[in-house]
Amino acid sequence: MGINLKEMERVDELQRSGYKIIQNPEGFCFGMDAVLLAEFARVKPTDNVLDLGTGTGVIPLLLDARYSPNTIKAIEIQEQSADMARRSVGLNRLEHKIEIITGDFKEADHIFPPASFDVVTCNPPYMIADHGLRNHNTPKTIARHEVCCTLEDVIEQSSKVLKGGGTFYLVHRPFRLTEILVMMHQYSLEPKRMKLVHPYLHKEPNMVLIEGKKGAKSRVTIEPPLIVYESPNIYTKELCELYG
Amino acid sequence: MGINLKEMERVDELQRSGYKIIQNPEGFCFGMDAVLLAEFARVKPTDNVLDLGTGTGVIPLLLDARYSPNTIKAIEIQEQSADMARRSVGLNRLEHKIEIITGDFKEADHIFPPASFDVVTCNPPYMIADHGLRNHNTPKTIARHEVCCTLEDVIEQSSKVLKGGGTFYLVHRPFRLTEILVMMHQYSLEPKRMKLVHPYLHKEPNMVLIEGKKGAKSRVTIEPPLIVYESPNIYTKELCELYG
Repeated sequence: MGINLKEMERVDELQRSGYKIIQNPEGFCFGMDAVLLAEFARVKPTDNVLDLGTGTGVIPLLLDARYSPNTIKAIEIQEQSADMARRSVGLNRLEHKIEIITGDFKEADHIFPPASFDVVTCNPPYMIADHGLRNHNTPKTIARHEVCCTLEDVIEQSSKVLKGGGTFYLVHRPFRLTEILVMMHQYSLEPKRMKLVHPYLHKEPNMVLIEGKKGAKSRVTIEPPLIVYESPNIYTKELCELYG
Repeated sequence: MGINLKEMERVDELQRSGYKIIQNPEGFCFGMDAVLLAEFARVKPTDNVLDLGTGTGVIPLLLDARYSPNTIKAIEIQEQSADMARRSVGLNRLEHKIEIITGDFKEADHIFPPASFDVVTCNPPYMIADHGLRNHNTPKTIARHEVCCTLEDVIEQSSKVLKGGGTFYLVHRPFRLTEILVMMHQYSLEPKRMKLVHPYLHKEPNMVLIEGKKGAKSRVTIEPPLIVYESPNIYTKELCELYG
């Protein structure tokens, strides 16, 4: 199969079983957050998975490489990104397992039957819409700021489309932890596991990974912290292991 | 001043400016949680402080040694513990600054005027009342299990007696983090700072320290983790510094 690339696009290796992804270095490229979320998630071969706001589809590709679940559906509001994701799926010959849907995940409960997924993942925009610089409705802005969706949309929709006992995986910024836990609790996605990611051992965390379970009782396990750097430009052993 | 000790009691050094505390090794002796809470708190010399469920008064003594606030009131439901706390206050000649009140802190809003404290601290029982072993209504059981008060009582009463902008300091078990953040948010004690305490770097945390601010906006800073042990019986440098 030939590689169908548009202007400015390139093919990057995912460092997982030969999986590749099409990215545009001028657009939004996936970061460590997506990789860590895919590693943090626990997915079974029989699971049907939904990824909300998939961008160029990095999470479905990483989840498939790692866990090979039954099916993965992924929804993305920006046609340009969804198109790249769809071509990456083709490039990896995964059309039979991964479906990319162009659409607004605020309507996930209309697009998919209620309580139909075992796992929902989301690497949402982190920044509140009116905070910080925001040039235009560019792909980067939409990926980073809550222009098209809020944290509450993510959690509400995830709760609606998850089966009872199904799991929700989110990566976000630690400064929003209270909002995240309050809303997950409110929408019955009870937080069960949480992991903080610190750039250095003695620095504040810059990412939080959370697992919620639909309808579960309140009791959360906080895992040991993940430390990214041993010293400048030197990854810790644990991070190297995660990156395979 | 002579030391007024009852049977089984002894005087322990607090390792802070010569402060001492009366404890009964057969009863509930203070732990690292109280020490870490007192270090985590930020208290000004003009502050009026309340400690809920003070036990033998370790937190008022540590706070006074560390910050010398204007006044400290402390409430304890068990007369035996309150009496020991009162005698420790006398032993340190702090009767003019620290007042120990025997009473039920579920009635704090009746005992004290509303919005009258700058700082409220609490090292509450960690265990849900009907969980785990529970022999009798012994001092140890009351200190460890939610027999006399629930987490919600702590947070509700703290919110009532704190001034707007006043700060609330809590030490608790991480597995209850969702409940803690949900209730603090609900009672307008918005979480602003949080620190996890891990016995070892690669182990789950066994304590969480939280600062809430009455009426503040939702945004929490998670601090670097505190690691207790470098190796078995060897404290980390940071813990040694905290213990002075």
